[in-house]
Amino acid sequence: MSDGTRQDGERDFVLGIDFGGTKVAVAAADRTGRVLRSLRLDTRAADGAAQAVERALRAAREMREALETEGGRCVAAGAVSPGVVHEDRIPFAPNVPGWEDLRLRHLTSEALELEVVACANDVKAGGLAEARWGALRDADPGIFLSLGTGIGAAVVVGGRVLGGAHGAAGEIGYLLRDASDTAGVASGRAPLEEYASGIGLARRGSSTLGEPATAAGLFASADARARALVADALDQLAVHVANLAITVDPARIAVGGGMMASAERVLPALERRLKEFVPFPPDLVPARYVQDSALRGALALALDATGGSRTPSTGAEPPA
Amino acid sequence: MSDGTRQDGERDFVLGIDFGGTKVAVAAADRTGRVLRSLRLDTRAADGAAQAVERALRAAREMREALETEGGRCVAAGAVSPGVVHEDRIPFAPNVPGWEDLRLRHLTSEALELEVVACANDVKAGGLAEARWGALRDADPGIFLSLGTGIGAAVVVGGRVLGGAHGAAGEIGYLLRDASDTAGVASGRAPLEEYASGIGLARRGSSTLGEPATAAGLFASADARARALVADALDQLAVHVANLAITVDPARIAVGGGMMASAERVLPALERRLKEFVPFPPDLVPARYVQDSALRGALALALDATGGSRTPSTGAEPPA
Repeated sequence: MSDGTRQDGERDFVLGIDFGGTKVAVAAADRTGRVLRSLRLDTRAADGAAQAVERALRAAREMREALETEGGRCVAAGAVSPGVVHEDRIPFAPNVPGWEDLRLRHLTSEALELEVVACANDVKAGGLAEARWGALRDADPGIFLSLGTGIGAAVVVGGRVLGGAHGAAGEIGYLLRDASDTAGVASGRAPLEEYASGIGLARRGSSTLGEPATAAGLFASADARARALVADALDQLAVHVANLAITVDPARIAVGGGMMASAERVLPALERRLKEFVPFPPDLVPARYVQDSALRGALALALDATGGSRTPSTGAEPPA
Repeated sequence: MSDGTRQDGERDFVLGIDFGGTKVAVAAADRTGRVLRSLRLDTRAADGAAQAVERALRAAREMREALETEGGRCVAAGAVSPGVVHEDRIPFAPNVPGWEDLRLRHLTSEALELEVVACANDVKAGGLAEARWGALRDADPGIFLSLGTGIGAAVVVGGRVLGGAHGAAGEIGYLLRDASDTAGVASGRAPLEEYASGIGLARRGSSTLGEPATAAGLFASADARARALVADALDQLAVHVANLAITVDPARIAVGGGMMASAERVLPALERRLKEFVPFPPDLVPARYVQDSALRGALALALDATGGSRTPSTGAEPPA
């Protein structure tokens, strides 16, 4: 890194911040997307949005200062979160109180004293990272699925993530499971997410088993009721992943998120429906960044905002 | 048209051919997309693909010759059909025997003695026509729904119809209705289409009523069983249209196809689900070319193949 013969910009770095419902991740990367530093904080969602953002931005600022002390130059930041990330608010992110009214770009720009700050939905950013460096390279269209606490999808067409008319494309937690669903987002509900996400599984498992349950605990349990609950939730997801594949006709689907800790159950459940129902069944693969796609996406957004990463969008060796 | 001061190419025309399961439509249009002539033939699907294609191409050739006798110059043709239209075959078009192996582009090019021939799926072509001249102008993304004998969708992003990795995007007839569906395209089935398309309604209506029924007859019937059947089919469609809108976040959905003869029942059924379930409910409007979107799309394809229509893709006055 200190070789004076290298090209201009080699000391440049960007910051990425992934605001999640349970943890916040912060990282710095060079212009090729290689991660230089990273750290994690608890979100403490119950304490509200303001404190989480403040602590994360303080950590990011300290990371910036440390790298600049070593001769680096911070050129941009990317910040991602659940919800529909607009310039001055973040609707449809119900899991952190106060998130709705957050001016994420403004706050990040101010705290880091940076002009160039890009913000986006976390799953869409994850799709961007997978398309640029990961499991969706050369897949057109490609779909990134995030199956975890919440669920979401990013549809990548021609190397770009489909945003939609209001930035809300891919918010598959709101999907109707079937015609028997009567209440949706207009009633404060998210039918598929409530049924089949990590949060939904935990709530339904607690009710079924009569004791507090987590999604991870249900996946690990040998209890027949827990196994049935998980199998049923995965099949509901599979129905909708198949329908998504019928609609988009992707070359490949990459799956990330917390549920992929049980990839050996998740992938076959999805595969079965894809093979039976999709005219041209896509490849189904684990995401490259199973646990940190959103953070990688925040870094990709920041690099794009500076005029692009040194890594071409396809064909190049991905960063380690 | 005969004014010698007009710009070069004003006598140019293109041919469009829409091969449907029950009728074939042929038209000629000038470079602005204005239709100069059109005609229809019965497909006589039971007699196979070859005779239908032969009769249609003969009619198209006669139309070409008549317009050339008047001083016109044929510059390109567009041909559209159901199914996934590839260069040398058309899979997934089960309603016309022999269609699967049809080399549509080659046959059209040969019969019309034209180098420039473009082929596409009929619903995708309809989406192109609506985006260019019709109800989806300036809608990004926009969705064109064709609800008729069969059902299909075209997703328009940035003025282009989403093709998918194998040309099969938008083939929503194959969608699973819900998790109880066990047989799909791999078993020769099309769950949503069999349940809720015109063909599906007719078959299920005949069974329910114990006498031959057509979709149009069921829509018109005062019989309580027929009314319930239609309402249920429309609601199944509405569930999947809402899910499509959640996935794509379109600005607008334009609906065409034979069922729109009952627009006063179709549109409210769809609207109800969109309003309840979609984070940002799109506008829902009738297509401009309710009955001939595919034919208009064939003309648009032909114009694109020559290097573009004189009508810009958005903002211009659409042709009459």
